Amino acid sequence: MKKSDVIKTLLNHRYVYTENTSGSAFAPANIALCKYWGKRDIELNLPVTSSLSVSLGEKGAHTTVSLINASEDKIRINEEDITLDTQIAKRLIEFLDLFRSNTEMHFAIDTKINIPMSAGLASSACSFAALIQALDQLFSWQLDRINLSILARLGSGSACRSLWDGFVKWHAGKEEDGMDSFAELLPYEWPHLCVGLLVISDQPKPISSREAMQKTVNTSCYYKSWPEKVKTDLEVLQEAIASRDFDLFGSVAESNALAMHASMLTANPPILYWLPETVAMMHQIWKKRAEGLPIYFTQDAGPNLKLLFLKTDIEQVKKTFPEIKIIMPFEKH
Amino acid sequence: MKKSDVIKTLLNHRYVYTENTSGSAFAPANIALCKYWGKRDIELNLPVTSSLSVSLGEKGAHTTVSLINASEDKIRINEEDITLDTQIAKRLIEFLDLFRSNTEMHFAIDTKINIPMSAGLASSACSFAALIQALDQLFSWQLDRINLSILARLGSGSACRSLWDGFVKWHAGKEEDGMDSFAELLPYEWPHLCVGLLVISDQPKPISSREAMQKTVNTSCYYKSWPEKVKTDLEVLQEAIASRDFDLFGSVAESNALAMHASMLTANPPILYWLPETVAMMHQIWKKRAEGLPIYFTQDAGPNLKLLFLKTDIEQVKKTFPEIKIIMPFEKH
Repeated sequence: MKKSDVIKTLLNHRYVYTENTSGSAFAPANIALCKYWGKRDIELNLPVTSSLSVSLGEKGAHTTVSLINASEDKIRINEEDITLDTQIAKRLIEFLDLFRSNTEMHFAIDTKINIPMSAGLASSACSFAALIQALDQLFSWQLDRINLSILARLGSGSACRSLWDGFVKWHAGKEEDGMDSFAELLPYEWPHLCVGLLVISDQPKPISSREAMQKTVNTSCYYKSWPEKVKTDLEVLQEAIASRDFDLFGSVAESNALAMHASMLTANPPILYWLPETVAMMHQIWKKRAEGLPIYFTQDAGPNLKLLFLKTDIEQVKKTFPEIKIIMPFEKH
Repeated sequence: MKKSDVIKTLLNHRYVYTENTSGSAFAPANIALCKYWGKRDIELNLPVTSSLSVSLGEKGAHTTVSLINASEDKIRINEEDITLDTQIAKRLIEFLDLFRSNTEMHFAIDTKINIPMSAGLASSACSFAALIQALDQLFSWQLDRINLSILARLGSGSACRSLWDGFVKWHAGKEEDGMDSFAELLPYEWPHLCVGLLVISDQPKPISSREAMQKTVNTSCYYKSWPEKVKTDLEVLQEAIASRDFDLFGSVAESNALAMHASMLTANPPILYWLPETVAMMHQIWKKRAEGLPIYFTQDAGPNLKLLFLKTDIEQVKKTFPEIKIIMPFEKH
């Protein structure tokens, strides 16, 4: 199954000729509490398991896409023109290819991302989520968000979770065409929930998460237990969210992240995103927790940790981690 | 099944009254290349899987055990009298209990260990292996080594591998009484093999390996894949040793150690023996290896790494790790 087949299915009866010359949208970054780790279909970014994230409110990407009279696309990120042969530009252009009605059609993308690009905050997720909504506006498709999440997924798997604020669940689905692999908003809020970014390194990753994921799926002796782990974690996480049981919530999120990293560690050759400072911070977090401060962490495919805690503990957390950047996902802005 | 039942089986027809007043023996420390991680019987130290180690030549424990006229045992380690209520003394006394023919019988143990006690070198393994051989001499049991390895195992699981120099395999066995769970020497030597000790911390462990092992078995989502991993690793390791394929040897040993630590990481709560320096050294080892230096590591339940390399690379290894302590397990002494 190809991406273009999915596009045909979803946009079949949609008006593609547009009188608009541009579309704009914002999409939040998201942090997975139960991770997306492993694809059942690489072309369509179909995951082996479902996953669950929390969106980061006003932290994310604002994207304007325009039709332009030019021989190639133009890509601007944070006021900077991006060379078209870079990795990020190639991915965006390949995604735009899916929506050109003819080879002459070219786009200008202008994106402003207000999160540190290399803080392990998956800027690609909010970028593709904002872009697909901007395209929906440009072309007046008027697709609903669930269908937009399917399209966003074609650009970057976790982008499908960045279509909403709040807690979002991405259903793995079973269909070959992935039409049942979409995200949706969970009906819970948690106003006091805080996410703290502990940026240890903003250096480029030694291995992309796409590659790490695939190597883990193909070579880790533990990966076969990952789906079962996710199944349990998803259930317990949703219970913890529904009942606002923070210790349960934090411990499951932390355990899920560690299981993801443990699966990488057993890939061949081993993959370790951790830096010495990552381990120092983990021990610090565990020490503080043993002393009674309810803080937990999650970690994506990078060295940085993301702290989970409640508003009541902000001052104590700041004292322990003066360099922390705090986001309150459910704070109204 | 109790330890005393095993003793009865093995020592049934042996002469226990002794004219000797003491016995002495040396046993080498050993480093597992395929780890012992998880018990199927806690009382008898019966392992879930087989394991494979290399003994460290002249690095180990020299123990003299004597019968004394006293109301309690005396324990001396490295010229220091050990208080009988310490952890190590308690374990030794409990072990000696198995061999007293009456409650009045008391022992003096004098042990000299020539490896750093807290370097993660499992000094308990060589201590119990030396002690059981010293007891064999004291009581003139004249047990063969395989049976002595069964008795040593009752003191500390991995002690059963410290009865020989060279590569040693501990068979998991299936019997309830563990009479088929013994170690034996593998018929291979590797004169150029080097083991390098990188001591990162000699602080006491936050959690004993016994406890970590049990928590992992009981709570890790990945532990169920461990036996299968070990089965493959054992086969490949033995092939690698037989054919002196060092890269295969090193990569399997490293992968096995990482899988053990990955299993701990997914215990509940997570167990992480690594310190920041552990990760720094791992990255340094991988970097050097990528540059062409054939070095691998293994790691036990502690923060320290043990480097595996060949004699030809000693100078380069010393340049990279000036603080390294090098042992050549097959060097004649």
